[in-house]
Amino acid sequence: MELSKICEPVQEELDEVEVRLRLISNVDFGHLSELLDYSLKGTGKRIRPVLTLLSGKFYDYNLDYLLPMATAVEVMHNATLVHDDAIDNSSVRRGRPTINTLWGVEKAVLLGDYLFAEAGALTATTENNRVIKRFADTLRTISSGEINQAYNAFNLNQGRQEYIERIAKKTASLFSMSTESGAVLSQAPEESVQILMAYAYNLGIAFQIVDDILDFTGTEEELGKPMGSDLAQGTLTLPAMLLLKHYPENNPVQRLFESRVEDDNISKAIEMVRNSSIIQECYQVASDYCTKACHDLEQLPDNDSRKSLLDLADFITSRNK
Amino acid sequence: MELSKICEPVQEELDEVEVRLRLISNVDFGHLSELLDYSLKGTGKRIRPVLTLLSGKFYDYNLDYLLPMATAVEVMHNATLVHDDAIDNSSVRRGRPTINTLWGVEKAVLLGDYLFAEAGALTATTENNRVIKRFADTLRTISSGEINQAYNAFNLNQGRQEYIERIAKKTASLFSMSTESGAVLSQAPEESVQILMAYAYNLGIAFQIVDDILDFTGTEEELGKPMGSDLAQGTLTLPAMLLLKHYPENNPVQRLFESRVEDDNISKAIEMVRNSSIIQECYQVASDYCTKACHDLEQLPDNDSRKSLLDLADFITSRNK
Repeated sequence: MELSKICEPVQEELDEVEVRLRLISNVDFGHLSELLDYSLKGTGKRIRPVLTLLSGKFYDYNLDYLLPMATAVEVMHNATLVHDDAIDNSSVRRGRPTINTLWGVEKAVLLGDYLFAEAGALTATTENNRVIKRFADTLRTISSGEINQAYNAFNLNQGRQEYIERIAKKTASLFSMSTESGAVLSQAPEESVQILMAYAYNLGIAFQIVDDILDFTGTEEELGKPMGSDLAQGTLTLPAMLLLKHYPENNPVQRLFESRVEDDNISKAIEMVRNSSIIQECYQVASDYCTKACHDLEQLPDNDSRKSLLDLADFITSRNK
Repeated sequence: MELSKICEPVQEELDEVEVRLRLISNVDFGHLSELLDYSLKGTGKRIRPVLTLLSGKFYDYNLDYLLPMATAVEVMHNATLVHDDAIDNSSVRRGRPTINTLWGVEKAVLLGDYLFAEAGALTATTENNRVIKRFADTLRTISSGEINQAYNAFNLNQGRQEYIERIAKKTASLFSMSTESGAVLSQAPEESVQILMAYAYNLGIAFQIVDDILDFTGTEEELGKPMGSDLAQGTLTLPAMLLLKHYPENNPVQRLFESRVEDDNISKAIEMVRNSSIIQECYQVASDYCTKACHDLEQLPDNDSRKSLLDLADFITSRNK
């Protein structure tokens, strides 16, 4: 199913989030305005605001709180991307040159800081203590996950458990915050908040696994960035882990991680992963997390929102970008 | 007067802030713990927490709110330093190698993000909407000031007004937030909050002017970093501006900014500033801001805190590090 179809129950509100994202660059300082406009203009999938809005639709749907919150989660996501690209020296993202490529690392770091502050300011307008605390806590969790990833660059001794813990921190935590905030700001009963959080947490893990698969299977055009980026950064993802496990001898991932010389190790690893059952295995793991994500959704009211959350789980494992 | 004497009315609380700063590094992830410990250990002057605590002492002094808040402003300050050093490639700060020197830019950026989140989490524990909103707003202001500074690197066409506006954003805004939060969390009447904010705003400007003077007059040992760092970054500060104004012909600052070649331009500029009336002129500007800072303090209750705020203004212009 198309993402646009899934978003239908909240399309009007998503359009309003888009307007608010654009308003952020409306500042009295031309250079900053240009950076903000470039980093927030509509090229992302906006999945996190969709989660916030769909979660809110189950209960007391108050747009005065939900719209700034849905905007906040997208801004926060973009802040992390701007910093990720800056520290990874990535040159392309979503098919466009990155902020650090166009304006340098210095401005990318400062812009990321500004975006975190903007996300915090938007969250603060909800005046909801639980949501505000979760915002700060989530940023702490994401940074800690990224620091963990940085320390484990080119480390071959990482198991599946560590991989899942890391992607839970760097991706699932913000997914979970997106549904929690939407539900809490709509006066959802605690049981429903927990169901929506567990849904998003598992969905986030599945989402990141698929992201890690696409780094091997996608085309540069689909990905909007070079293939094999994770390997180039020394990030051991699930497909690479399975490649090491299935081909313990003379493995290109091992050669790359030990020598840190790219040569043809990355293209060889991509080729081997594509010509094996690894992709299928990884999709199975992602699919299991999606099943887990949807497990308790039936306890929520039966409405368009619930249907969209179920469809979103299907979309996550079928997307190619 | 010694800073320790000025801090006396809140020394016990400052010690508790120090304990809380150390507790932040008590996380279940060794590498992160090491980074946090290094960046937060007690080498700073802790002026911002002092401002929060002294401001609180005028009214309903509730340590449950003031201690996390005083800790938060110091953590936020340290977060900005970690990012500043990372993007400036600074190698030394407070007499020690910087985070980026010891662990690389990637970890410095991520650690700064974590520290911003930690400061946000501490602020959120106050559950005070005004203070929480000010926190996000201040981070936005600081980042915007830093972006402005980055865009104006090596730009000779900057006037006094632009200089003051920039240091107001990058330094005075956090000073002002420090007193505002202390006062608001102690149920100070709005008039007193405004007086304390204006005090800290002007004090912050004076503080930054003195910082910019010390970059010319201090020794590397006193500064804990190389002299002339601002010029090396292309940052036009008040002493450099006055040097350009007083010696419009064959000026080393102009040569440096136009060629971006350091040669002996920096040492020549330092020498010329030291052998002129510029230092005295700059101290006069700082001193005027301190006078302005203290102007309305007499409207506050006459107590030890008020005396310390007055003494702090004197200390700011007499410090040599």
